[in-house]
Amino acid sequence: MVHTGACIASLLGQGGSKKYHLTWKWLRYFKNDRDRRDLITSGSAAGIAAAFRAPVGGLLFALEEMASWWRSALIWRAFFTTAVVAIILRAFIDFCLSGKCGLFGKGGLIMYDVTSTDVMYHLSDVPTVLVLGFVGGLLGASYNFLLAKVLRLYSLINEKGAINKILLACWISIFTSCLLFGLPWFASCKACPADAGEACPTIGRSGNYKKFQCNYGEYNDLASLIFNTNDDAIKNLFSKGTDSEFQWSSLVIFFTTCFFLSIVSYGVIVPAGLFVPVIVTGASYGRLVGMLMGSHSNLNHGLFAVLGAASFLGGTMRTTVSLCVILLELTNNLLLLPLMMVVLLISKTVADAFNDNIYDIIMKAKGFPYLENHAEPYMRQLTVGDVVTGPLQTLNGIEKVGNIVHILRNTRHNGFPVVNEPPLSISPVLFGLILRTHLIELLKGRVFSPNPDYMDGDMLGQFSANDFAKKGSGHVESIDDIEFSEEELEMYVDLHPFTNASPYTVVETMSLAKALVLFREVGLRHALVIPKLSGRSPVVGILTRHDFMPEHTLNLHPSLLRSRWKRLRFQFPSIFKSF
Amino acid sequence: MVHTGACIASLLGQGGSKKYHLTWKWLRYFKNDRDRRDLITSGSAAGIAAAFRAPVGGLLFALEEMASWWRSALIWRAFFTTAVVAIILRAFIDFCLSGKCGLFGKGGLIMYDVTSTDVMYHLSDVPTVLVLGFVGGLLGASYNFLLAKVLRLYSLINEKGAINKILLACWISIFTSCLLFGLPWFASCKACPADAGEACPTIGRSGNYKKFQCNYGEYNDLASLIFNTNDDAIKNLFSKGTDSEFQWSSLVIFFTTCFFLSIVSYGVIVPAGLFVPVIVTGASYGRLVGMLMGSHSNLNHGLFAVLGAASFLGGTMRTTVSLCVILLELTNNLLLLPLMMVVLLISKTVADAFNDNIYDIIMKAKGFPYLENHAEPYMRQLTVGDVVTGPLQTLNGIEKVGNIVHILRNTRHNGFPVVNEPPLSISPVLFGLILRTHLIELLKGRVFSPNPDYMDGDMLGQFSANDFAKKGSGHVESIDDIEFSEEELEMYVDLHPFTNASPYTVVETMSLAKALVLFREVGLRHALVIPKLSGRSPVVGILTRHDFMPEHTLNLHPSLLRSRWKRLRFQFPSIFKSF
Repeated sequence: MVHTGACIASLLGQGGSKKYHLTWKWLRYFKNDRDRRDLITSGSAAGIAAAFRAPVGGLLFALEEMASWWRSALIWRAFFTTAVVAIILRAFIDFCLSGKCGLFGKGGLIMYDVTSTDVMYHLSDVPTVLVLGFVGGLLGASYNFLLAKVLRLYSLINEKGAINKILLACWISIFTSCLLFGLPWFASCKACPADAGEACPTIGRSGNYKKFQCNYGEYNDLASLIFNTNDDAIKNLFSKGTDSEFQWSSLVIFFTTCFFLSIVSYGVIVPAGLFVPVIVTGASYGRLVGMLMGSHSNLNHGLFAVLGAASFLGGTMRTTVSLCVILLELTNNLLLLPLMMVVLLISKTVADAFNDNIYDIIMKAKGFPYLENHAEPYMRQLTVGDVVTGPLQTLNGIEKVGNIVHILRNTRHNGFPVVNEPPLSISPVLFGLILRTHLIELLKGRVFSPNPDYMDGDMLGQFSANDFAKKGSGHVESIDDIEFSEEELEMYVDLHPFTNASPYTVVETMSLAKALVLFREVGLRHALVIPKLSGRSPVVGILTRHDFMPEHTLNLHPSLLRSRWKRLRFQFPSIFKSF
Repeated sequence: MVHTGACIASLLGQGGSKKYHLTWKWLRYFKNDRDRRDLITSGSAAGIAAAFRAPVGGLLFALEEMASWWRSALIWRAFFTTAVVAIILRAFIDFCLSGKCGLFGKGGLIMYDVTSTDVMYHLSDVPTVLVLGFVGGLLGASYNFLLAKVLRLYSLINEKGAINKILLACWISIFTSCLLFGLPWFASCKACPADAGEACPTIGRSGNYKKFQCNYGEYNDLASLIFNTNDDAIKNLFSKGTDSEFQWSSLVIFFTTCFFLSIVSYGVIVPAGLFVPVIVTGASYGRLVGMLMGSHSNLNHGLFAVLGAASFLGGTMRTTVSLCVILLELTNNLLLLPLMMVVLLISKTVADAFNDNIYDIIMKAKGFPYLENHAEPYMRQLTVGDVVTGPLQTLNGIEKVGNIVHILRNTRHNGFPVVNEPPLSISPVLFGLILRTHLIELLKGRVFSPNPDYMDGDMLGQFSANDFAKKGSGHVESIDDIEFSEEELEMYVDLHPFTNASPYTVVETMSLAKALVLFREVGLRHALVIPKLSGRSPVVGILTRHDFMPEHTLNLHPSLLRSRWKRLRFQFPSIFKSF
């Protein structure tokens, strides 16, 4: 659902899809990076809000985990989105309660309602909860570790072509089916409770007591967990009156199965989520702890299941506030909040000691150039000047068409500094930064002049701001698609009106860690690197997101890092923490 | 409580108070701007969490309203703080329930519990709620408007000396007392309900049915609201079974009184909050709407009071997520969430059309140089070079002591660019930025040499990083306090080891709006302005927060703004929205 929400938002952000004739004129207002990013964040918030009926939790999750930077306007827009989701959800629930939606008619705004007035716990329960959080953190860290390994294996398989991808998915699904049908044989039958609120055993329809291969009047508890929908299984595990419903052995089998199956089935080419499997696994883990404690604790097994889910979620996702609110909205149990916060804190802290959160791991496995929040310590020893590489391609303020075409064809840079060279100025003056896409758009317009002249109003009128708006991601124009005649290549084009005259700049001696903060906080793609020494060329390089990647920075000679470390230790780095 | 929490945090951040011998050695680790700011944010989060027993809401409020910028580490630290608050609160509640705390023993984790399973509303209730939100927004905006006027009046009075301040506070308190004791005379008595859950009327102790001047068996509803604690009044207004408890006229009087009294009593020199008065006023407003609707609505009057409080809070505070969560944690009513979100959105939107949120208004009234989140449109027409004024004072890398003392005495700047002039380099080279406080600390150390030499390791060893840590705010050192002999003034000091060698820079042609984004997002105090033209001096000015203030920018000649506007319209500003 998160993904679906984000995809719809991304589609809207690209102005609809031309291919499928789904495009509207007003959507072009979103054609810039910032609005598109905001839209996608709001979309994912809406997805979570709808999936878990948790509008505030969804919003917070999107902000804490998805958004790489915050703006107050973003909070407000995402809040609007989730409010709309909440209203529509509420209206549909209202409509469906009258029975017009068939099987979809059940359920209220709160999915796993565990409101019970008897949430009483005392200080004596705190140690148990601490241990639960600690172990949950360990489990979460190992989950992430295993998932990373499996994803690497799968990517090797998936690289070998579409057929392999499909075969892998088939194998996994066959394996899963066999396993799930086979496992309940290992569980022994239990007699139906006398005061069961619903039919026991249930045959042929959904229900909490599955007969499987048992005699009449008995049920198989493992089958009840496995053959139920995930939602009902979670609801069952979270419930308070079910302390004696499950057997010790069944829960161990169920927990182990969920743990490994959810790892194995993520990453194959079928839509698979992370949230619900993690909640199921965590809830069964929590139940196990609850059974282990037995009557030594004031908390019932259902509450242990909620706390177990919290600890496992905290151990894998590593968010704090948003998980807290999502679990609150899922279970409607505000009295458990203090314990939930403690569990989340502990499991997150423990798991953070081992590896990254699950989304970072997946992102790394996919190889996206994602900027980390934190600067690595070695980045303090490198300056921006060290990592900027390659010959710098600058353009003159009024440039020959042939040069532009040559540069565009021979480099893959996305931005070029524009420097006014003599005779445009007495000495070289930095004018700004021009983007590759804007250059291509400009060349397509063919507003060339035979002499190096400034562009006049008439020629400018040929372009509209919309031409330079961000294109949809499927719509990449290449310089190779445009043909130029010999005369055109000898003509000139004035870049000034199309150049971003106020690019962000960093001095070449700025530490890489500090530049990273700038990139993260302002959301930059390029920054111009300028020299400290006046008299040299006005710009010495372009810093991009790729320059921060460890693959790039760590390839610099290690001896450089060592010598820097020694030299810089003399200064007082700690006082520059403040800026 | 917010203020108290922030104050304690600020005290810790300054390393304790030397004056009162409350200082610890480990506190010096917080002696930098960033940690101090984080501490204060966490402190205010803890304050709200404790005041409203709303840990998640408090955290979100601190992040949405207090913090000027977000970091994921900040979320996590503030979460830790509020989790500790929640645990301690819960432990005290547990302890006090046994009756060992006297009058403090009452109440659970949820202050105004309105959980009622019968929250049923249908689409027909939505229009009422929309109108409630709209009017709430109007009320909130007028509240802010009046508060700003009253604050301006009070600041005029307060300027005239301490005696006036105290007199003002006395007058307000006498006026308030007389008013509150006089008003209940206007309300008529009501007969006690037959099924009252508590003693009716109550005399001489706290309770919901105050006798005041009524006969036995009757109560005065206005007196019940006024002479109760605020908490109990809110609880009463939020309750569901009290639809007939209040009279129309009493609620109107109570609402008007609360509205104006809370405005008048804020800003005098007594500790006064904003949150609780606003909730009380909003709740009585919501009740009024509920009584107006009567039986036309499915919602009971208590829920209308909750929604009324939400709308008035949204209209004054203008935050969304945090208010939503705080109200959720106060009332424990998750089913009302969709309506609450709509009400908050509408009241915020309506009120935003008129004026700023209440905290911005108070901040402006106090005259703090606070950077707005949004750039004003005119800022796009100004460049950084336009607003940087005054002669630039630069220091040489190895500078004469006399020059430093002269510059420090004659300017009030907080940072100075360090430029290596010949003979230190062939041409002037920008080296970095040095802070006034660091210069003073350096001069106090008196590590001078008679010739312009670089400082060696021995001399450096005289300083520890702690000397340059941020001092407590009460601890300002002035250059005038240090005496220098004639010889010392002729000596030299090497500034290189103490200079921040990687300052943030902006080019002089960067638009002021873009520079504002940089200042806000990275949390800057100074940025060096560098020229685009190489060959001039390597730095042309220092941009500070004050340069963004309207008092400063709007004083620039208006004709400059006009001409800029014309010139820049030619370019395509919209495409530079993306960066």
